[in-house]
Amino acid sequence: MALLARSLRASAQPALVFARSMGVQYKAPIRDIQFVVDEVLNGDRHYQKAGFTDVSSDFRHSVLEEMAKFSEEVLSPLNAAGDEHGCKLDAKTKDVTTPPGWKEAYEQYKEGGWQSLSVAEEYGGQNLPLSLGLIKSELIATANWAWGMYPGLSIGAMNTLTLHGSEEQKQQYLTKLAEGTWLGTMCLTEPQCGTDLGQMKTKAVKQADGSYKITGTKIFISCGEHDFTENIVHIVLARTENAPPGTKGISLFIVPKYLQKEDGSLETKKNLVCGGLEKKMGIHGSSTCVMNFEDSKGWLIGEENKGLFQMFTFMNTARIGTALQGLGAAELAYQGALPYTKERMSMRALSGTREPEKAGDAIIHHGDVRRMLLTCKAFAEGARSMMYETSMLADYMLTAKTPEEHKKVDDEMGFLTPILKGFITEIGVEAASQGLQCFGGHGYLQDWGMEQNMRDARIGTLYEGTTGIQALDLLGRKILLQGGKNWLSYTGECFKYMKKQLWDNRQTSQHKREIVRLLPYFAKWYYMTGRVALRARSDADALSAASNDYLMYSGYTVMGFHWLRMMDVASERLANGGLSKEDELFYKAKVQTGQFYFDHLLPRANSHFQSALASHKSIMGEDAFNFQQQ
Amino acid sequence: MALLARSLRASAQPALVFARSMGVQYKAPIRDIQFVVDEVLNGDRHYQKAGFTDVSSDFRHSVLEEMAKFSEEVLSPLNAAGDEHGCKLDAKTKDVTTPPGWKEAYEQYKEGGWQSLSVAEEYGGQNLPLSLGLIKSELIATANWAWGMYPGLSIGAMNTLTLHGSEEQKQQYLTKLAEGTWLGTMCLTEPQCGTDLGQMKTKAVKQADGSYKITGTKIFISCGEHDFTENIVHIVLARTENAPPGTKGISLFIVPKYLQKEDGSLETKKNLVCGGLEKKMGIHGSSTCVMNFEDSKGWLIGEENKGLFQMFTFMNTARIGTALQGLGAAELAYQGALPYTKERMSMRALSGTREPEKAGDAIIHHGDVRRMLLTCKAFAEGARSMMYETSMLADYMLTAKTPEEHKKVDDEMGFLTPILKGFITEIGVEAASQGLQCFGGHGYLQDWGMEQNMRDARIGTLYEGTTGIQALDLLGRKILLQGGKNWLSYTGECFKYMKKQLWDNRQTSQHKREIVRLLPYFAKWYYMTGRVALRARSDADALSAASNDYLMYSGYTVMGFHWLRMMDVASERLANGGLSKEDELFYKAKVQTGQFYFDHLLPRANSHFQSALASHKSIMGEDAFNFQQQ
Repeated sequence: MALLARSLRASAQPALVFARSMGVQYKAPIRDIQFVVDEVLNGDRHYQKAGFTDVSSDFRHSVLEEMAKFSEEVLSPLNAAGDEHGCKLDAKTKDVTTPPGWKEAYEQYKEGGWQSLSVAEEYGGQNLPLSLGLIKSELIATANWAWGMYPGLSIGAMNTLTLHGSEEQKQQYLTKLAEGTWLGTMCLTEPQCGTDLGQMKTKAVKQADGSYKITGTKIFISCGEHDFTENIVHIVLARTENAPPGTKGISLFIVPKYLQKEDGSLETKKNLVCGGLEKKMGIHGSSTCVMNFEDSKGWLIGEENKGLFQMFTFMNTARIGTALQGLGAAELAYQGALPYTKERMSMRALSGTREPEKAGDAIIHHGDVRRMLLTCKAFAEGARSMMYETSMLADYMLTAKTPEEHKKVDDEMGFLTPILKGFITEIGVEAASQGLQCFGGHGYLQDWGMEQNMRDARIGTLYEGTTGIQALDLLGRKILLQGGKNWLSYTGECFKYMKKQLWDNRQTSQHKREIVRLLPYFAKWYYMTGRVALRARSDADALSAASNDYLMYSGYTVMGFHWLRMMDVASERLANGGLSKEDELFYKAKVQTGQFYFDHLLPRANSHFQSALASHKSIMGEDAFNFQQQ
Repeated sequence: MALLARSLRASAQPALVFARSMGVQYKAPIRDIQFVVDEVLNGDRHYQKAGFTDVSSDFRHSVLEEMAKFSEEVLSPLNAAGDEHGCKLDAKTKDVTTPPGWKEAYEQYKEGGWQSLSVAEEYGGQNLPLSLGLIKSELIATANWAWGMYPGLSIGAMNTLTLHGSEEQKQQYLTKLAEGTWLGTMCLTEPQCGTDLGQMKTKAVKQADGSYKITGTKIFISCGEHDFTENIVHIVLARTENAPPGTKGISLFIVPKYLQKEDGSLETKKNLVCGGLEKKMGIHGSSTCVMNFEDSKGWLIGEENKGLFQMFTFMNTARIGTALQGLGAAELAYQGALPYTKERMSMRALSGTREPEKAGDAIIHHGDVRRMLLTCKAFAEGARSMMYETSMLADYMLTAKTPEEHKKVDDEMGFLTPILKGFITEIGVEAASQGLQCFGGHGYLQDWGMEQNMRDARIGTLYEGTTGIQALDLLGRKILLQGGKNWLSYTGECFKYMKKQLWDNRQTSQHKREIVRLLPYFAKWYYMTGRVALRARSDADALSAASNDYLMYSGYTVMGFHWLRMMDVASERLANGGLSKEDELFYKAKVQTGQFYFDHLLPRANSHFQSALASHKSIMGEDAFNFQQQ
């Protein structure tokens, strides 16, 4: 915690702007964040219970304020310029240059000690809860997603070393990563395989000194090469000689960009090189690299052939981190569109002139524009509550005493993770598109940053497992294979809450009507699960055919439950009275947004229900793709 | 028709390719097009009835083959390169250079006589039906939408002159536009107004010689400046002196880029200049210009203050042309994704190994991938049928004998137009996104052309009236204001067909089950209309709040009816037997795709129904946007 005292405030310098436009100037939604953490999820109780006794409301608030400042003042203004400039690969040196100002922003971030927030103290970390790290990541993600990938990917590498590295490896690498002097990556994908890692070919040959020589090509390596740090630590999946075929023969290695000499200084010759940068739809500021390994020296992490298992141990946290992109895209869409719709005049409101002194009424007075704004808002705020709740589960992973305790928490998170990653990244793309739409033709221009938001958001449903993979993971692995254990326990908690509000608190609870609307969605969730499971007994393809609808149904329903809780809290505060004007506006906005969700978004689940239960034969039938135009 | 004999086949030259990748190589879906025109919509009978006795099936086929060749061989290979290069504005000369190869492609198009397809013979046209022109436009649009905008916008200018120009204006401008020697644009939007043209400021001052001096700034002028032709004819909306305020004071002018001298040759000084090019999300090859008018010489079209009315007379055809972009995006998404999903191997199919000799099964064997492919396919083919049916109505506009006949057809089209423009461009974006998703992370790269397709498609819901404008136009103007006249007559025809299939043809019709599924959607359409109309009596904003859901509901339902008819035709052909292997595959694919639509896409309408009927107060309430983070 000492490191945080090195306030970013002092060092925050105005960022250079290179592009014609600024895009959206991000404003951290501090009140919204506090509402979820403090009021909806009872943060004080949670952090006490999870063993983070230092993490008081005041402390959280000060961390949040610092991070907000950095995100707003440093990262947000670099976002549009990063999109415009992108990364450049030097054809000769194979060095990668990041967009102007990005490296300097990282220096400030590193100096602030932000990278080690949730790392153990013995490796230079601050031992703070993962859920606090997630909030930090949310602010970065929304202000400048592509920039955030550099420290973000490194967290994946740190998690791997924390869980599976030897003490020596932790001392050598984790400490450097925690202080941010080096950054890390994860090298999984190869040209012929992404999801299906069993097809992986990269070879690792053991040397006499215990190290390995690694040879192969990895693609889609986010932040695989850059100029932020003096060294980059790659965590690489590869096959040792005589490893069993498929996923059972995969091992995990540390392969640094520059090897360390005896005295700790770095070699000048690269241990592996970047073979190319991908040209992408968005996230231009994040380098997406082809990484060529040619007898590159590396060291085994843990045991041989345990690589896939080791990857899975932090898959949940990695995927939750990716889900943040959906939340960020929705939040940025709303923040970008709201002021525009209040200023842009077009036509008169249908119910009569609102701004007679002007040539037209602001478009926010038109119902369809309000619908789009509210869609962004309801998605962003609903997603935030869903994500924070799950990340608080993750806090117990750091304090778990036994492998069993760890597994229990991991399983509980495991059920929610594909819903977060799958559902929230999908609605993030939709929200980004709706935010753009609020601008009419102007939204299509680079100037406003809304089209960048949509292009950036679009990667969310693809990496860290596509939506299709999340959907299968949820329905197949996380629900059916477990006999529904964690799902039933989660929904049981939801029922308990609704019952309490309907019955015990019936005198005061003000959203009994919403509970009555929400209950059938839970009931149908059970019904749908049973029906699909039965169908899958005779034809396993029925699972895959229904999985996307199942995922989206689950997402809308879980978000409905979160909106119910948020509305309950807000209405209770309003009923209790004694609020500041600002708080009154805040809670009232919350209640209306929730009502909008119940009225206009939750019903979408019903279409997914219908489609999931409709015949899978029209999907799996053999006729559809047989004709080919000659 | 003589011009068509100048076959493009002879002159078709392989296009130059400048980009690293080719994007999607387009293949014109000739069999699908013929299926809709000849079999579903009974083209032979239609063209006879509409008075185009020359337009036989053979003739249509030969036009289609020629156009397919040009689109596939010339336009499609230029699509990715156009995106990469974009248009360049010379800061000094204010000339715009289009992407490499584009001008040459236009030369071929012009030589082929394609631009005059539906222009009257006295102005050098070929007098062919508009519906045939639409098919031509579809092929161009799918192969290379941005390129197609240059001739496409010119069609808008030609329509204006055809309907409202003087004989002299037609001889001077329309003939040049029809032969393609010049191209035209439409200059409507200004910085402060797009939809709300009443706010327009551009001034036109009458001169002694009867011409006008026009001054003002127009933005978003598609193809406002380029190097395709020696001259560009701008149709410009402006206000004369002392014109009444608002939309009643708008007049229409011809303003050429270069004025013509007495001898017909062109002046060398520009009459107006391009002040800038917009940087856009997509359609990079299409120049989007700021056009600066400064005492630019122009001539009035028709009478003063009739400009808005004149624009409206061909609004339907212009918007239907834009709707093509949605169809094209869905078709291209399918064509791009299908071969990839047949080749890319990942994991094994859930129901068991399909390709044991390979390292994995092709991803087309996974249910969720099939769902995405079928979504693109069902949307493209359903949209095609919807669009062709409407464009056949447009054929009667050319042969209408009286203003009343013209108005009747225009009104019938008027009801369908916002559904086509609004619904089809929306599903086009979705299909483009699903096609991209089929590629996993690879879809995010420029190489495959799928991300370009999505970026290009995204403009569709914005220009020619946003989706919100289409939605209000449909519900407010086209249905409620007309007492539902054209809507009831359309749905009446649908009922007639369904009754015939359910009863008269009950022995042979094979999709009675689909009719029984579809009928409630029509019934609920009536119910929803009544409910929203009632609510709007006490609060007009209820219309706007429900309009998007209403539009999407209408779109899904109309498309359902088209799928029913396509399934009926296909199943009848299959039942009759005697088919070639190819035809059998074709019709079977059609039936399964229709089944998919009924099972998995049509149910979405129900969510829109629920949302449209839910309270509009959660949208219009005053609380939602009042809180602001300080």
